[in-house]
Amino acid sequence: MSTRMRPLRDTIPIAEARQIIHTHLTGIDRVERVDLSTAHDRVLAQDIVSAVDVPPFSRAAMDGYAVRAEDTFGASRAEPAILHCIEQVFTGQTPVHALHSRQCAEIATGAPLPAGADAVVMVEESDSNGSDVRIFMPVYPKQNVGRQGADIQSGQTVLRSGELLTPSKVGVLAALGTTALSVFARPRVAILSTGNEIVAPGEPLGAGQIYDINRFTIAALVEQHGGTPRSYRTVADTIDDLSRAVDECLENDVLIFSGGSSVGERDLILDVLAARGEVFFHGIAVKPGKPMAFGQIGGRLFFGMPGYPTSCLTNTYALFVPALRRLARLPAWTPRTVTVPLASRIVSATGRHQFFTVRIEKDIAVPAFKTSGDITSMSRADGYIEIPAHTDIVEAGEMVEVKLF
Amino acid sequence: MSTRMRPLRDTIPIAEARQIIHTHLTGIDRVERVDLSTAHDRVLAQDIVSAVDVPPFSRAAMDGYAVRAEDTFGASRAEPAILHCIEQVFTGQTPVHALHSRQCAEIATGAPLPAGADAVVMVEESDSNGSDVRIFMPVYPKQNVGRQGADIQSGQTVLRSGELLTPSKVGVLAALGTTALSVFARPRVAILSTGNEIVAPGEPLGAGQIYDINRFTIAALVEQHGGTPRSYRTVADTIDDLSRAVDECLENDVLIFSGGSSVGERDLILDVLAARGEVFFHGIAVKPGKPMAFGQIGGRLFFGMPGYPTSCLTNTYALFVPALRRLARLPAWTPRTVTVPLASRIVSATGRHQFFTVRIEKDIAVPAFKTSGDITSMSRADGYIEIPAHTDIVEAGEMVEVKLF
Repeated sequence: MSTRMRPLRDTIPIAEARQIIHTHLTGIDRVERVDLSTAHDRVLAQDIVSAVDVPPFSRAAMDGYAVRAEDTFGASRAEPAILHCIEQVFTGQTPVHALHSRQCAEIATGAPLPAGADAVVMVEESDSNGSDVRIFMPVYPKQNVGRQGADIQSGQTVLRSGELLTPSKVGVLAALGTTALSVFARPRVAILSTGNEIVAPGEPLGAGQIYDINRFTIAALVEQHGGTPRSYRTVADTIDDLSRAVDECLENDVLIFSGGSSVGERDLILDVLAARGEVFFHGIAVKPGKPMAFGQIGGRLFFGMPGYPTSCLTNTYALFVPALRRLARLPAWTPRTVTVPLASRIVSATGRHQFFTVRIEKDIAVPAFKTSGDITSMSRADGYIEIPAHTDIVEAGEMVEVKLF
Repeated sequence: MSTRMRPLRDTIPIAEARQIIHTHLTGIDRVERVDLSTAHDRVLAQDIVSAVDVPPFSRAAMDGYAVRAEDTFGASRAEPAILHCIEQVFTGQTPVHALHSRQCAEIATGAPLPAGADAVVMVEESDSNGSDVRIFMPVYPKQNVGRQGADIQSGQTVLRSGELLTPSKVGVLAALGTTALSVFARPRVAILSTGNEIVAPGEPLGAGQIYDINRFTIAALVEQHGGTPRSYRTVADTIDDLSRAVDECLENDVLIFSGGSSVGERDLILDVLAARGEVFFHGIAVKPGKPMAFGQIGGRLFFGMPGYPTSCLTNTYALFVPALRRLARLPAWTPRTVTVPLASRIVSATGRHQFFTVRIEKDIAVPAFKTSGDITSMSRADGYIEIPAHTDIVEAGEMVEVKLF
């Protein structure tokens, strides 16, 4: 064997790789202020204590008549209670008069209850000839009333730091009159492609060169999972240029490189990282995607992804996305799955956890994998199945769980 | 009954409402150019025909030695084939020499194959003393070679108009050297809150007034599902102001109002819409969320949502989001679900399809619904169950499918 080539013989199981990554991750601490209108899908970085009651006043929950409940006791269609209507209260208005015995006020949903009123009779259970209103059914006190503070009470902690701001939680913030709030910053992810053969789309392609794919697929996943992708220039395979590129990337929260952890003589990125930082693992027992590295440099975690587009992307889905979400303090992400029969037998490499892309055709999983160098192995697939390291054959017709892209 | 109040007696089943909405929807036709770096999650508006082969040249799929396969036939550890190494080809370089009989070239993964070579021997199956290389195993022609055009061939249609640009499809575009492309525009969604009682967060809250919630919850969902939310001022309950507001909103693709389709005298928005457009339905047999309207005005579809925050949000999830995705040409969206036992009996209104929010606690669904006026009915819930119109009781312990937020 050439002394200049270094095959990747030692690999660790994917579960161990996940565990090592997990051990080194902590959620981001940097916070920023955002407007309420851009707060959704962000992670709250402060407790929210309400300074107000919601609703701020007791209000009608139905269109109808605000009454003193006791005036309706015993009412029926045969013997309605007859009340005197003293005013109309529309939503957004305030009642002028307090209700006294045998009085009522016509009231719209959401309008404040007059003083003295303690219930609302639905309009459907009444009849009116102008000033006199006939009530056909008794109401009990508080019936059809949204009481002041029933939703949220002043002084109550309504949301806590670390909660993901779903649409309904954004609604809670609006209900309190919030206009700006503190959220955890999105992790900044430096994305860097290495390799003399890599050219950015739009530039001319020389002999032996190919367009950069991984920078774009990784950036798309980073945006989908709560990070801010920051693309860096393609880096030549020289120690000097790689070292400079690492320095440029250190202003970010995490570094993800592709192409730098294979076994050729010219894959120098790991040397740079090992010299200036620490490599936690290099090589995992997955197929495709064996040449993956994870470590730290200058206090930043780095992920070294395989150069081949399909391996890079499956490892990004399987290992980087969960890490990024943890860094971003987002809840764990479970891909949607379907369980369908496999169209044709798959022979898998024993000893390596295998990702195998499939298309779903007529509720059957049809293998879509060509080679790990082919982006169409993924772009023509609907998802992938995982074949554990100890399984070597999955027969046609066996039910498989497809994780959907 | 007061002549000024109009109870909502006629409702249609939710399935019929879905059908009516579906009938009126077509995917957006407006297209725009975007950079590749912002293309993910957009819907392609052109066919993509490759002008290049991917890979653009035949290349090594492994680190090792480029060979003429026939020179290795019969090789074994006991009787290796001995080849003369004439050069090294690194990734990004081009080979200088053509291979002749009994010659090989050291080659890195991704580097172009020399002329004359038709296979690559893995480095693990070889040994070298400098210029002579011993090959321990035969390779067949094309083995360990990524052939020119094997992934994508020039002239091939690789993506079609209407496809969602997932990360791997973005990767395909990058592989072709694409820098900009046509996608369908995001539907512009005019969001408008109506009601004299509604005040924007940040403004002082007068007597009888509450903060606008729905504008923010709807906007969050619009952004999550491929639309561009455009918030409009809160509109007073006057025919004139409502009519002006509708005019302002018509520059958008779809209009969604909240608060305007209940039954009080002052809910005038439907009158405006009916006078100037067409109401397709008003009132659906769901609980909460009965007062919902759907129609068109000035060639734009409009959705009139209930004013109450929880009803507004469940109807937005259940009816508006699917419509928006269809308008945006996005694939149908299936919420994630868990199936767990119900903590306590729910008595449901027969004749109305019911949405019932629940929290998941220790794998049990605990009812979280307070009233449709309470935003915390949703913000403290993890999802909701649906109880069909013909079911009146769901017993404690029954398994229920929870659709997660």
